[in-house]
Amino acid sequence: MTSETRVCRIHSARDLRIDTLELGEPGPGQVLLKMRAGGICGSDLHYYQDGGFGAIRVREPMVLGHEVSGEVVSTGPGVEGLAPGTRVAVNPSHPCNACAFCLRGLQQHCLNMTFFGSAMPFPHSQGAFRERMVVAATQCEPLGDVVSFGEGACAEPLAVCLHAGTRAGDLKGKRVIVTGAGPIGSLCVAVAKFGGAAEIVVTDLQDATLKVAEEMGATRAINTRTNPDGLKEFEANKGCFDVAFECSAAAPAIRSLFPVLRPQARFVQVGTGGDATIALAMLVAKEIEWAGAQRFHAEYPLAVKMIAERRIDVRPIITGTFPLADAVAAFDAAGDRSKAVKVQLELA
Amino acid sequence: MTSETRVCRIHSARDLRIDTLELGEPGPGQVLLKMRAGGICGSDLHYYQDGGFGAIRVREPMVLGHEVSGEVVSTGPGVEGLAPGTRVAVNPSHPCNACAFCLRGLQQHCLNMTFFGSAMPFPHSQGAFRERMVVAATQCEPLGDVVSFGEGACAEPLAVCLHAGTRAGDLKGKRVIVTGAGPIGSLCVAVAKFGGAAEIVVTDLQDATLKVAEEMGATRAINTRTNPDGLKEFEANKGCFDVAFECSAAAPAIRSLFPVLRPQARFVQVGTGGDATIALAMLVAKEIEWAGAQRFHAEYPLAVKMIAERRIDVRPIITGTFPLADAVAAFDAAGDRSKAVKVQLELA
Amino acid sequence: MTSETRVCRIHSARDLRIDTLELGEPGPGQVLLKMRAGGICGSDLHYYQDGGFGAIRVREPMVLGHEVSGEVVSTGPGVEGLAPGTRVAVNPSHPCNACAFCLRGLQQHCLNMTFFGSAMPFPHSQGAFRERMVVAATQCEPLGDVVSFGEGACAEPLAVCLHAGTRAGDLKGKRVIVTGAGPIGSLCVAVAKFGGAAEIVVTDLQDATLKVAEEMGATRAINTRTNPDGLKEFEANKGCFDVAFECSAAAPAIRSLFPVLRPQARFVQVGTGGDATIALAMLVAKEIEWAGAQRFHAEYPLAVKMIAERRIDVRPIITGTFPLADAVAAFDAAGDRSKAVKVQLELA
Amino acid sequence: MTSETRVCRIHSARDLRIDTLELGEPGPGQVLLKMRAGGICGSDLHYYQDGGFGAIRVREPMVLGHEVSGEVVSTGPGVEGLAPGTRVAVNPSHPCNACAFCLRGLQQHCLNMTFFGSAMPFPHSQGAFRERMVVAATQCEPLGDVVSFGEGACAEPLAVCLHAGTRAGDLKGKRVIVTGAGPIGSLCVAVAKFGGAAEIVVTDLQDATLKVAEEMGATRAINTRTNPDGLKEFEANKGCFDVAFECSAAAPAIRSLFPVLRPQARFVQVGTGGDATIALAMLVAKEIEWAGAQRFHAEYPLAVKMIAERRIDVRPIITGTFPLADAVAAFDAAGDRSKAVKVQLELA
Repeated sequence: MTSETRVCRIHSARDLRIDTLELGEPGPGQVLLKMRAGGICGSDLHYYQDGGFGAIRVREPMVLGHEVSGEVVSTGPGVEGLAPGTRVAVNPSHPCNACAFCLRGLQQHCLNMTFFGSAMPFPHSQGAFRERMVVAATQCEPLGDVVSFGEGACAEPLAVCLHAGTRAGDLKGKRVIVTGAGPIGSLCVAVAKFGGAAEIVVTDLQDATLKVAEEMGATRAINTRTNPDGLKEFEANKGCFDVAFECSAAAPAIRSLFPVLRPQARFVQVGTGGDATIALAMLVAKEIEWAGAQRFHAEYPLAVKMIAERRIDVRPIITGTFPLADAVAAFDAAGDRSKAVKVQLELA
Repeated sequence: MTSETRVCRIHSARDLRIDTLELGEPGPGQVLLKMRAGGICGSDLHYYQDGGFGAIRVREPMVLGHEVSGEVVSTGPGVEGLAPGTRVAVNPSHPCNACAFCLRGLQQHCLNMTFFGSAMPFPHSQGAFRERMVVAATQCEPLGDVVSFGEGACAEPLAVCLHAGTRAGDLKGKRVIVTGAGPIGSLCVAVAKFGGAAEIVVTDLQDATLKVAEEMGATRAINTRTNPDGLKEFEANKGCFDVAFECSAAAPAIRSLFPVLRPQARFVQVGTGGDATIALAMLVAKEIEWAGAQRFHAEYPLAVKMIAERRIDVRPIITGTFPLADAVAAFDAAGDRSKAVKVQLELA
Repeated sequence: MTSETRVCRIHSARDLRIDTLELGEPGPGQVLLKMRAGGICGSDLHYYQDGGFGAIRVREPMVLGHEVSGEVVSTGPGVEGLAPGTRVAVNPSHPCNACAFCLRGLQQHCLNMTFFGSAMPFPHSQGAFRERMVVAATQCEPLGDVVSFGEGACAEPLAVCLHAGTRAGDLKGKRVIVTGAGPIGSLCVAVAKFGGAAEIVVTDLQDATLKVAEEMGATRAINTRTNPDGLKEFEANKGCFDVAFECSAAAPAIRSLFPVLRPQARFVQVGTGGDATIALAMLVAKEIEWAGAQRFHAEYPLAVKMIAERRIDVRPIITGTFPLADAVAAFDAAGDRSKAVKVQLELA
Repeated sequence: MTSETRVCRIHSARDLRIDTLELGEPGPGQVLLKMRAGGICGSDLHYYQDGGFGAIRVREPMVLGHEVSGEVVSTGPGVEGLAPGTRVAVNPSHPCNACAFCLRGLQQHCLNMTFFGSAMPFPHSQGAFRERMVVAATQCEPLGDVVSFGEGACAEPLAVCLHAGTRAGDLKGKRVIVTGAGPIGSLCVAVAKFGGAAEIVVTDLQDATLKVAEEMGATRAINTRTNPDGLKEFEANKGCFDVAFECSAAAPAIRSLFPVLRPQARFVQVGTGGDATIALAMLVAKEIEWAGAQRFHAEYPLAVKMIAERRIDVRPIITGTFPLADAVAAFDAAGDRSKAVKVQLELA
């Protein structure tokens, strides 16, 4: 038996529609969810604004969205512990658990990964901005009853940042710099604080987003547009930061980090896209470790737990919420970096 | 009481002279050496060919050379264990052992480093291509009686590569790629073998140097000039190499590594100079760790010991030896990358 | 010019006296402090109760105390930034910064260490339970004006625990168990929370101390005297804790950890003294890493900063404060583990 | 269709028989092997001498043996790359690749492991001392045509030691001590050499086995029975070894290591069985890391490759070979530690 559900679907650049799709019953090990909150991510925005990024293009209609929460409507055979009404965050990542990387504990590099709302494979992997959705029970993490669905939908970007934190290693007592104060930068600030960083400096070009980063735990915020020499003081004696989280993917931000990082510092690259040019001598002479961070695995349930307990309070980053029907307005608001950190949809 | 000694001194680009300088007696803790072998390094070559590199320029006459060995002539007060005639390799590095980095065991980042033959400070730090020289006893590492002075003079570049190996971490059973088969690349091959790498692929644009790298332990040599698709087979399944030693500082070599390194691989940047442009997505999506390696510290005595015991046999990289008087010819030979790996001077 | 100061000095087991000693002027690089608070440590207690521990015995009168804070009275030549009245925590550790271990960044293993109030060397290293004291300026860490001197005196045991945290490595999202809820155990709980542990279980034989550990951040407290099977539930599937901080040095506590730690868990031994017997098969089959943690180095200034900012709030562990004149009563109170966590002296 | 094969089977302590069992055809993904060489391990010997070890007892007849090699007779459906006559080493370990530990890359801790010749589960996991045997194709590692089947059968103990090496971490330039010069100790010596250890000291109570350890690469052998103070010289300045491989499980050997290991040394426990008593102060004051090493996973194919290429030459450890029919004599020879290192059976 099938019914119907409304979805937020991209057809091509700037062509975002509320469409109606058929919806099946949950099969064995599956769960039917009423979706509640969905956060708009930078990749969603790229699909909307440009129809893709780099070589990845929207080639068929694709439901967007991978930062989502909802509540259980019904469950298929063999599902336990997810009673109707259970509030859950939904893990958009579905590794195969059988390839060489999964069997090394590197599920984020799964050779057969499916991930909500990605145009990388063809047919595209459909996303989760829907009123109702059938997912695997293993993707549902109970959210408890304290926090909002909007907070629950922040579990995905928080998991990205907790994984960046895993890549950074031990942060206790460390001096940390974060470049870029969008949702990922602000949540990296929160992760640095959560991990015991002694000092957290954040840079951005917008005062509004820097203010959010301070609410998330930054001990100092520097607007490098209005204060271009703001990082100078950190350059003395070969630099002072132990760890960087680079969240902007902007060439000037990347270059600004080498002088202020101490020798053998860990430079975690979270932001991605485009090219970056560096002077090799900067990397070599200071023995910087420039390490990429990609998605997450074990960090997703951790993110849900830390949000559910408000050990990490994500509320400051949620800057706007729109009903599903106003998705276009929501995407336009999300694109205004002077005001928005995280814009969410109320899905149902 | 002073005497005189001949030295190999750069005055400006292409102006390399055999000059005569005064020579003092060894003071407390010092040793007078008869210098024997001196290897020409890439930085020596840059001083000769271009008068410097990047912002570092020769601004006063400077004795070149930091890859040297010699034998003890006499010792100053308080020196023990270095009888006349003792054959030694000479450590060109002299950290202060008092700054914040030295007190963290990061002597290669010493804030007050002096290093033979470097135009970075002014007055320049004078080098060791001399007939006779007074050095600190702590810079002398006994070389034993088995190996040649030429082999002993390879301790410095080997120490650089052992330090790159330290930065790479455990190599036992690893699949390793080395880009660039000059002296540093060939010695990185030797270090990879020494550390138990299961497979060592080396690339270069010259067959002659690749042949040397094979003698040093490479299991496969690929000329990427004559065989530009030679690395294609290593790209399958997100790449297969666990570790890279990038020894060329050449942009195409750097870019060639991302597709063949496996996720979370360690990419050790040894070669330096110039800019490099990379696609951020390559670093991020595979979570590559691109880490600089700079000079050495504890690795110098280790290099001498491993050479002295022929645990690492450096003889294949020594491709030519010239008398001090023919320094210009030696430098010209060293500059011909189609033939030369390591060219050395017979100092006295 | 000299004056006098009162000190708390151990002469032999149970012979603790308030003596008067001469006091000099601060020399170059030195500071005269009015001492304010001093915490009684387990080693102080051993000197008092038993005249020492293991092979270490009190062989001459020795001023006790190494957990101290005070305020600046005057400074010797060449001291900057420590104006009279500055409130400071005093680092009891004074490594030589010249031996092989110091030059590897392992100052806690200094071959020439002096440490306040230790009978390990002879003549003994005198301690800091004094009204006034001359110390090196480099041992003074400004404490700010927010927290009490008593809190400042907790910097030393907190530094011990932060160093145990360094030995444990990254704690973000980890499941942690702490055995022993005395001052060190309770502060290890605080460090686990500070470092982002997701779950912190603490065990002890006393409800009073367990209550303090819960105030410091434990998510679960188990009295293994009244509930000897309290850890059983954590044994399933080869155990679940990623990290243990063993703070009791008690054989039953040590043995209780192997079944509940997961394979390749990190087991940090902080408590010391006496023998421990383990089944080798427990260590081997689960590949447990049982690692000692000894004192601290970089963690001391970090401890002061975290206390000064109340990022780590140490107030719950301070269970009693006595005037210097009542030192014997203070030591007797400190010895009653059913009530006391940390007992302090008001020094002046 | 079934046939028969002879096997070496333990019935109870000292009751070892050559029995005949039925043999099936290889099913899908399986291979029929003619078994060739089988090494007698310490656990085989315990089953023979004592009927088990610790709580693990032989409760039904069990074929012994897990260090084996053979050649392909025929293959079941779906097996590629294993033509009849292919010489292989056989991996005795068969993790489930689905449990929580397998999905973290810790297959040696698989919750559902089957392993040749182990009485830990019941019914027991039958072993590989047989004339013919059907195994999974994934357990067969091609051995090449250079080395003997006896060498191939050393892949299993070498894998154990390579895994101990993995647990030890980077060995390049390290000073290593190995206690116990039986097969595991001697192969740990080989692994230390393979990994670039600068110095390898080995101890044992038997000159014969020490001699083998020297052939495997030890730079110094000390008989601690005839020279009980032989390790004294290594105690100066808080000890000098960076890494220990403890392969004896003997309490005196374990205790002998703490004084000669440097602070923060890595102490890898490979030998297992029985209790060990240590002074906590030794572990704590020097911050020793005492870490267990259990079996292997990725190290098995590496062991086969390194043996096949003679990068690690295992021939010195093979001290005797007996025909299958003389299994009792072989086990008696293997039990004489004054002469034997590794005794093998010629299986067919």
